[in-house]
Amino acid sequence: MPFTQISLKKGTTADFRATMMESIYLAMRESIGIPEDDRFATIVELEEGNFTSSGNYAGVERTDNVVFIQITLNAGRTVDAKKALYAAIAKQLEQDLAVRPEDVVVSLIEVSPEDWSLGNGLAQYA
Amino acid sequence: MPFTQISLKKGTTADFRATMMESIYLAMRESIGIPEDDRFATIVELEEGNFTSSGNYAGVERTDNVVFIQITLNAGRTVDAKKALYAAIAKQLEQDLAVRPEDVVVSLIEVSPEDWSLGNGLAQYA
Amino acid sequence: MPFTQISLKKGTTADFRATMMESIYLAMRESIGIPEDDRFATIVELEEGNFTSSGNYAGVERTDNVVFIQITLNAGRTVDAKKALYAAIAKQLEQDLAVRPEDVVVSLIEVSPEDWSLGNGLAQYA
Repeated sequence: MPFTQISLKKGTTADFRATMMESIYLAMRESIGIPEDDRFATIVELEEGNFTSSGNYAGVERTDNVVFIQITLNAGRTVDAKKALYAAIAKQLEQDLAVRPEDVVVSLIEVSPEDWSLGNGLAQYA
Repeated sequence: MPFTQISLKKGTTADFRATMMESIYLAMRESIGIPEDDRFATIVELEEGNFTSSGNYAGVERTDNVVFIQITLNAGRTVDAKKALYAAIAKQLEQDLAVRPEDVVVSLIEVSPEDWSLGNGLAQYA
Repeated sequence: MPFTQISLKKGTTADFRATMMESIYLAMRESIGIPEDDRFATIVELEEGNFTSSGNYAGVERTDNVVFIQITLNAGRTVDAKKALYAAIAKQLEQDLAVRPEDVVVSLIEVSPEDWSLGNGLAQYA
């Protein structure tokens, strides 16, 4: 159960956004081996002007087509696994949606297995 | 000061959403003993198609009436306390709003007392 | 790379919101020394009734002009540094936008350097 929260500029199509959630899911499947069908995601569409992505900070030329992806997931992945995850997300979004890799900004938040309830008032991973 | 961030599909009434914030507050009061009047919550209403809740992953049949609840709270609750919290939220939302327990997805993020400012530029818990 | 997620009531001007992102950036520059040009922020505008800020909990009289600021940032700041951060944000928002300090609610989430990708599928801080 990673929980993937996506923010991007208003103006994309519903198809684009549906594919984006699926592409990130596929990237997580491939790179960090999340379980099959483990899809939990939300998309918030931001008005022009309601975000900033820091121009060329860290030597990356971002545009206002930036996609902010915040993933809450269980702790324990190695640095190498996280690097593989970032590479896989950027590659999948470029391949499936022609998103520029420069515009893919990812932030991870690590939690513990007991920090999830997937429904029915139960802690399925604890 | 838990901070409760709720995401759900557009189309509920204002009363429904107000009750939802109050029901989750009451569930946290009862199960993990948060202080009286400690209510901090936001609700984001998502367009149809701007979320996915993973069909029947983990054997739970979710619908598109799913409610995503992400709670940032101080670290230190036991696994049992978290289990009680999930049960209380699902029960309260079912009782007050007829939300299906299957559709209640909760994610906790633990932080430290010094990670909060409740106003006035002060760290009230540090 | 702090990532700053702001939520506030609908009805402010675009200028107000642009200044808010810049003011919080300046406060982080001054108080905790984030790098120059390290601006990553989103703003979600909430409908009236889609948030609650707990009346006068902890002795602070908040109004519905409350601003919720959740900042994801690298771990390691001292309690004193966090206190300086809260004070700087409240002061800057009051000075630049006449936001009441009582209405500035901040929540920090600490992560590790390898939890960021600032673009290009790379982990720039790892």
